[in-house]
Amino acid sequence: MQIEEYLGRVQKECDAHLDTIIPSEDERPAVIHKAMRYSVLAGGKRFRPALVVASGEVFDADLESLFDLACGIELIHTYSLIHDDLPCMDDDDLRRGKPTLHKVFGDGIAVLAGDALYALAFEVIALCAEPETIEEIARATGTDGMIGGQAADILFEGKEISPLDLEYIHTHKTGSLITACLTSGARMGNAADEDIAQLRDFGGRIGLAFQIVDDILDETGTTETLGKKTGADKERGKNTYPKIHGLQASVDKAVGLVNEAKNALVLPGRSTIILELLADFVVHRVI
Amino acid sequence: MQIEEYLGRVQKECDAHLDTIIPSEDERPAVIHKAMRYSVLAGGKRFRPALVVASGEVFDADLESLFDLACGIELIHTYSLIHDDLPCMDDDDLRRGKPTLHKVFGDGIAVLAGDALYALAFEVIALCAEPETIEEIARATGTDGMIGGQAADILFEGKEISPLDLEYIHTHKTGSLITACLTSGARMGNAADEDIAQLRDFGGRIGLAFQIVDDILDETGTTETLGKKTGADKERGKNTYPKIHGLQASVDKAVGLVNEAKNALVLPGRSTIILELLADFVVHRVI
Repeated sequence: MQIEEYLGRVQKECDAHLDTIIPSEDERPAVIHKAMRYSVLAGGKRFRPALVVASGEVFDADLESLFDLACGIELIHTYSLIHDDLPCMDDDDLRRGKPTLHKVFGDGIAVLAGDALYALAFEVIALCAEPETIEEIARATGTDGMIGGQAADILFEGKEISPLDLEYIHTHKTGSLITACLTSGARMGNAADEDIAQLRDFGGRIGLAFQIVDDILDETGTTETLGKKTGADKERGKNTYPKIHGLQASVDKAVGLVNEAKNALVLPGRSTIILELLADFVVHRVI
Repeated sequence: MQIEEYLGRVQKECDAHLDTIIPSEDERPAVIHKAMRYSVLAGGKRFRPALVVASGEVFDADLESLFDLACGIELIHTYSLIHDDLPCMDDDDLRRGKPTLHKVFGDGIAVLAGDALYALAFEVIALCAEPETIEEIARATGTDGMIGGQAADILFEGKEISPLDLEYIHTHKTGSLITACLTSGARMGNAADEDIAQLRDFGGRIGLAFQIVDDILDETGTTETLGKKTGADKERGKNTYPKIHGLQASVDKAVGLVNEAKNALVLPGRSTIILELLADFVVHRVI
């Protein structure tokens, strides 16, 4: 099976789930529900949901619960994009090929819609996951994870940064939630602690690779293919992998991380093929 | 026992808990942790935590877990204040007697610190509560609760509003989380469904009274006693109870709601005295 086929299947199922999870635009508060739907149903790749589902399938987790969890995490991802795009943060005008939420609905509604997606995520996740999983996801999105990375990203804008600080930003801003996809998916199938630890290492490597690729594409991609403005990092004085290490070294680093991730992943008695193909997918746009 | 003594005891215990729950300013990302501590440890009354603890004590819940839950809810309350105070929302400069967070740290850090408090809240709550409780709290803070009310509040600014729409704003913006304090506290003591239903009614009434009192004090209170700018509602064209119904009718309504709440609260074989005193406390500043 081509991995695109797998991703397409997850995307279709996930989009259908998300459409039922987010209240309709007829329900009060209509404008917030409309804003939530605008951002979530804008047609993302659903890469994070695919990680959740693939990881859970390795451990024979219940598929219905996996999709609920996957959608919960996609809601969190979308909320983080909405807040990151705000003028007081990255100030982006374009996302997934459409004007960013605050450009259409205003900053106040964008803040609230992000907050509402985050709340809805925990509603959904609490209905399918154990408290340990909920805690892990919350932690991955807090100051020890996503927020920690985003805060450092903003604070270092236009400033000199060490390679170590840049890696901190990337592993936290992007890597933490990607890792949580893998570990929480596996937990739904009652994976053993040593398997969870394996997936944490795997997630750390492909998460870092994912953000490096994002940096590379901001330099080399086009607005048309990416659905967001390119060259934005440079314009804002963002610290990126290509800026610090050069373009070719960044590609090599990303590919190296994915290979390391695949080689190190050993889950005795389990097939890891889909996870390995998803890891390859992370770098396929830059090789 | 005077209810002030009870509130003081909860406040002291809660402040000590919160101080250990929020990472220190030495931990990365330092500026976010500093911002979180600035807002949370600014000396709130901890009325919501008191509702959690009092409600849980009625059902002999474990006190340590109750304080964890209470702190989790206080983190949510503080996050909501930070986001509501932003220039793109209520644009307030003063809160709990100090400059609002965004005035000191900037809008971007304020958005992130609010997000981080929300994440931390679910980390804390997941460690002490059952999934059903987590789901209930998430729902109370989403579009069916707090966010729903806040969105309507902003959208109706400067516009004519019906008494019914105003009540929707108040019961959702403020009432939903107050109700969740009571029901989640009771759940920690494995309260029966009929008792939870009783507390939901009680919370609905005192939650509405709480917001009516807030409206009244915005007209009649002083910045010195309230720690926030008064007259702000009128300035922003906010729809308030006194504006729609007049000052005296608003006081009567709030007092009436508290009396109804107390009279209707029957928890067979349990003492509800502290909950009743907390209900009285809601209106004590306007009678």
